Order: sequence, then C-alpha cells, then structure tokens
Amino acid sequence: MIIQKEITLKPRARGFHLITFEILDALPELKEFGRGIANIFIKHTSASLTINENVSPEVKTDLNNYFDKLVPDSLPYFEHTIEGPDDMSAHVKSSILGYSLNIPVTNGMFNLGTWQGIYLCEHRNRGGARKLIITVTGE
Amino acid sequence: MIIQKEITLKPRARGFHLITFEILDALPELKEFGRGIANIFIKHTSASLTINENVSPEVKTDLNNYFDKLVPDSLPYFEHTIEGPDDMSAHVKSSILGYSLNIPVTNGMFNLGTWQGIYLCEHRNRGGARKLIITVTGE
Amino acid sequence: MIIQKEITLKPRARGFHLITFEILDALPELKEFGRGIANIFIKHTSASLTINENVSPEVKTDLNNYFDKLVPDSLPYFEHTIEGPDDMSAHVKSSILGYSLNIPVTNGMFNLGTWQGIYLCEHRNRGGARKLIITVTGE
Repeated sequence: MIIQKEITLKPRARGFHLITFEILDALPELKEFGRGIANIFIKHTSASLTINENVSPEVKTDLNNYFDKLVPDSLPYFEHTIEGPDDMSAHVKSSILGYSLNIPVTNGMFNLGTWQGIYLCEHRNRGGARKLIITVTGE
Repeated sequence: MIIQKEITLKPRARGFHLITFEILDALPELKEFGRGIANIFIKHTSASLTINENVSPEVKTDLNNYFDKLVPDSLPYFEHTIEGPDDMSAHVKSSILGYSLNIPVTNGMFNLGTWQGIYLCEHRNRGGARKLIITVTGE
Repeated sequence: MIIQKEITLKPRARGFHLITFEILDALPELKEFGRGIANIFIKHTSASLTINENVSPEVKTDLNNYFDKLVPDSLPYFEHTIEGPDDMSAHVKSSILGYSLNIPVTNGMFNLGTWQGIYLCEHRNRGGARKLIITVTGE
C-alpha cells in the first residue's frame, strides 16, 4: 500500500519551526498503516527538514543561532550573490541538514521517540509557503 | 514484504561506534529479502547514525574529535543548558549527522561498499541504551 | 513493484557535480512508476550525495569552497593520514552530507522542485568511478 500527497506549509519566519502536527493533520491516511515508512520531502533548496527536541523553545533558538554562525550570510568568497545575502547560506544549510526524513510508521502513527519532533528549517528571510511531498509505503 | 522491529543497543561511551554486526545479529529476517531497502531509525535527539570507514580505529577518533570541535559543549550563546553541557551540542550534532539510514538490501544482505560500516554516534557522556527501529521493505 | 540496479558514474574531479541526467539516463524503468520512492545510495565513504540548486554554476563553486573550509585537508589532529591529506577530510564531509537520497517518484518522474538537482560530492582529488545503487519502490 502506498499513498502520496503534496502539502503546502504556511509561511514561516527564518528559523526552526515544529511542524509535526501540521503534517499529521494533513495525513489522516496514516492510521490505515500498521507498519511502514513515511518519507517527507521538501521541494526547495533554501529550506530543509530535521528532527529535534520537541519541547524546549530554547532548542529552536539555539539551533537557529548555531547554524547562522556555522554558515554566515554573505561569506566574502561566495560568488552566488544575485538572489540576496541569505540565499547561498540557505543552500549550504540545506545540504547540511537535508531534504527528506524517513520515519517509521507503526500502528497508524509516526514511531518517533518521546522527545522527537519534525522541524521545518526555514533559511530564507522570506521563504514563503514551502511544499512537501509525503509518501507512505507499508501495509 | 515488510518487516519492522525495535532493537535496543547496548550503552556506549561518547564517541563513534561501529554497530553493523550488532544490527545484523538482530536481523536474521534480512536473508529473506532478494532486494529492498532497510531503514534504520534512532528514536533519540542526542545520538545519531552515520556510515563511515569501517576498518581503521583512527577514523572513529578523528570523527569524534572533529564533531566535538565543530559543535563544542557549552557554547556561550546556548540557552538550552538545563540538561547539562553535553545536551544542546548533542542535539546540534544529531541534526547534522542525521537520524536514519536507508541502505539497499540485495540478495539477503546490506549492499554496502567494501569500506562502509554503520556507526552509532553517541553524543552524550552517558547516553544509555539507544533504541532503533529497523524497517525493511522489499521482496 | 521494486527495481534495483547498480550504476557506475564517470570519474569526476574533486568538487560538486550535477548528475541528475546521468541518473535518469540509466533509469528508463522510472516511467513505469505512478508513485513511489527512489533511493540513491553511494557505496563509498569519501564521496557523498546531495540535492542543491541546479542552474547557477557559482553554486557548485561556493558549495565546494564552503565544505573545503569547513573540513580542511590535513587537520593537525587527524590521526588517519595513511591514505593522503584528502582522505580523512573526505570521510568527515561524507558523514555531514550523507550517503543516500530518497526522492519521491510521481507519474514516472523524480518529483523534484524546479530548482533541485542531484549532486555527486566528490571529496577526493582522484576519486575514480563511483558506484551507486538505485532502488525504486512503488506502484
């Protein structure tokens, strides 16, 4: 059994944003799967997806500050500057953090650890509404 | 055909640890798959999974030293400090290295390159026994 | 339905290289899939795979320069030096960037965003011909 759908996230500010429930709300079909794998893929190159601690708001702040320092906007040697100072840094961050998550599905639910939540990592100052493709394979 | 199981790794010290054979020992069902994909997912936010060179012990040391310098404990701007100096650094490292591996399965075996082994990246000083969900889809 | 095949990429110089069309040319079976997931896995520990912006040649240069600075060759504390100055740095970069991509397949095509292309990240000065395993699961 396989389902696939595209969802559009509401626009977010630059930073790390928990989207676990926005995804689950868009995916009522998940409960039909006894076991399987959910692939969540972001169709962009300046935003990415990760999993991280889902309770403390300081984690979001710290993640954002860390990656902003790891990949500063406007590094002096960047040549790809035509789309603004936050564009090439966004591309680098996206490759570090990654474009898809593969999460086990068990008994109709994401089989995440207690502290795991799904994050949209928005690397642009004005990234707009990001599109995800969600594919669930299983039985 | 799909199988899914949870396994609990024995506790490890902070660092990079080869777990290829610990996973294979827990997965006798793998030999029933002619071809497919194995997803190995870690249910934590302060430990991660990667693939790397599986022979030289210096590789483990160098990986550990590199990531400890890339994401130092107790960065002065970290706000999420309540769980200890190795906690927020562990969260950052986990997002960089990633929470799941997707490995092709061919003729009943992981279709890894000659030098590829599966690593648990334990980012906490006392991380305890880590849980993995392994899902194999194929035929 | 599942297909799996090994392909060998032509050798590339150190750097980031778009391989979307080299993969598609090797994968005529893709058009038989209405929906599914394609896993592209690299069987090496000194080269990796990522997705990034697929038009501007400056993006390739900037990515290469960024990762060469993030993980310099011959870091003074590296102990795994027997295979040359570009070997341990290649292992670290590979774990940061990752060994596999999981891309949704829709209507016989990779369901990539407009600006997304598939990159081989060649981290060795002379990496040779890299092998990929491509597995497509779907219907």
